[in-house]
Amino acid sequence: MQPLIHTYAPELQVSNWVNTEKELSIQEHRGKVIVIYAFQMLCPGCISYCIPQAKKMSQLFSSEEILLIGLHSVFEHHDVMGIDALNVFIHEYKLAFPVAVDQASTDSTIPQTMSAYRLNGTPSLIIIDKQGLIRVNQLGHVDDMLVGKILGQLMSE
Amino acid sequence: MQPLIHTYAPELQVSNWVNTEKELSIQEHRGKVIVIYAFQMLCPGCISYCIPQAKKMSQLFSSEEILLIGLHSVFEHHDVMGIDALNVFIHEYKLAFPVAVDQASTDSTIPQTMSAYRLNGTPSLIIIDKQGLIRVNQLGHVDDMLVGKILGQLMSE
Amino acid sequence: MQPLIHTYAPELQVSNWVNTEKELSIQEHRGKVIVIYAFQMLCPGCISYCIPQAKKMSQLFSSEEILLIGLHSVFEHHDVMGIDALNVFIHEYKLAFPVAVDQASTDSTIPQTMSAYRLNGTPSLIIIDKQGLIRVNQLGHVDDMLVGKILGQLMSE
Amino acid sequence: MQPLIHTYAPELQVSNWVNTEKELSIQEHRGKVIVIYAFQMLCPGCISYCIPQAKKMSQLFSSEEILLIGLHSVFEHHDVMGIDALNVFIHEYKLAFPVAVDQASTDSTIPQTMSAYRLNGTPSLIIIDKQGLIRVNQLGHVDDMLVGKILGQLMSE
Repeated sequence: MQPLIHTYAPELQVSNWVNTEKELSIQEHRGKVIVIYAFQMLCPGCISYCIPQAKKMSQLFSSEEILLIGLHSVFEHHDVMGIDALNVFIHEYKLAFPVAVDQASTDSTIPQTMSAYRLNGTPSLIIIDKQGLIRVNQLGHVDDMLVGKILGQLMSE
Repeated sequence: MQPLIHTYAPELQVSNWVNTEKELSIQEHRGKVIVIYAFQMLCPGCISYCIPQAKKMSQLFSSEEILLIGLHSVFEHHDVMGIDALNVFIHEYKLAFPVAVDQASTDSTIPQTMSAYRLNGTPSLIIIDKQGLIRVNQLGHVDDMLVGKILGQLMSE
Repeated sequence: MQPLIHTYAPELQVSNWVNTEKELSIQEHRGKVIVIYAFQMLCPGCISYCIPQAKKMSQLFSSEEILLIGLHSVFEHHDVMGIDALNVFIHEYKLAFPVAVDQASTDSTIPQTMSAYRLNGTPSLIIIDKQGLIRVNQLGHVDDMLVGKILGQLMSE
Repeated sequence: MQPLIHTYAPELQVSNWVNTEKELSIQEHRGKVIVIYAFQMLCPGCISYCIPQAKKMSQLFSSEEILLIGLHSVFEHHDVMGIDALNVFIHEYKLAFPVAVDQASTDSTIPQTMSAYRLNGTPSLIIIDKQGLIRVNQLGHVDDMLVGKILGQLMSE
């Protein structure tokens, strides 16, 4: 993974929430490890790697241990990855964790949270420590064992 | 696989063709082994099994050996699996073989070709021999080696 | 796979047979497709690819369709891959098909059948047609679908 | 995984060491997380799960982070899994981490370290914390992400 200067995680900019009764805030979960998994529903690498890994996280870790949020950051083919299509995707892939729809920009194809976190594409794995600092911000696949190690370490801080 | 009474393959009922300059006809390809792979772009089992297997077929077999057609048979969530979404899917998954969109029915959620072939869901693998008889019509995953054996045998008939 | 000049398959030179009551002869099985899978029990590539593929063949094809023979062609580390070790290996990996031990040479580390077939290492897949001609002689992994196609074609000849 | 009463890890009883210049002691590595992976070279489950997972650990974690020891605990087929065969296995599978041969018992087929740790078979994963307490002692496969989490947590204690 690339080295990273730790900065405070910006708040998510979200147009829709799925699988949660209330909006989730980075700020309000200070004290908990937060995993944000940015994906697009029609991105093959996301389907192959991100979705199974996110499902495994949600099975292995309790909601006391981590807050896991899927972030649907659509930066291409916007017309066919709207909220209706995403709802079908979440239903068919049996995703049980909260999913946020990244708020579209008015002047860019890149949605707002994706810009704020300077993501280079999807899938991107973001891990935020208990203090609210971004500790991982990685495009592409990160090995399961390495993800587990990092989460284990951050939980213990 | 389930035993099957061999019947002549009905013609495909198609609203759109992708990756082919002209419409493809079962009748006009008498003398060639035809593989029709019915899928839905938001069906997880199709993404895991059907798409990789269809891509492998298109790599291993020449167009002289088999005619491979993807059949997008949408029987649920019709709103979000239209032709625009399918075009993005085909682009992102780099499908190079012809794909037919199964013609919607006016009185049923089941599209017309899916009804004619009595498919029970997606993915479904249909294999038609050189005489035009349906030799395989199977819901779910069929092992690569078994698919290869059947195609090898039918090519040799 | 490499192109191949078809030659008649030489008889196997065997010091021990496992999983068969009588010795098996290439000559005596003229009229049947024969698969010979050369392996070494301590060869990682053989464990990863050859053994699972051979087990799949033995499940998918009846003994009427093909004669499958494992060939233990030891060309290195002879001391620790003797018949006692091989018997344990066959037991632990639950191999049910006949296995022949390639006859050691008196003047070479390469056993006799391995020399006769000019194998370059293990795993090597040899496929012999109904006439007794070698149609495949390939070092390394061959895709399941391609193996299936070749076997389907040769069965139909 | 099964719950576990934490007890101090007994010292390894070893007849041979491979891939290390000096004998390794549990006692002398107090302060470091220790992973002991018990396996047998002719155990299919060990080859499929334990060996790849141990190799991944040795790639992802530095020797400052964990001490990884393979433990060859032969409890069956002793004749064909001696030190000569094991040396070939370690060479062929390119294992670079230290491997200890569990000391045979005079009155049992179960070797001494296997008895001391009350292992029920192979593969067995043992993880010892910085204080020398056994925190994991698990027969069979443990998911990579869970192994990573446990190691991350124990490293942080």
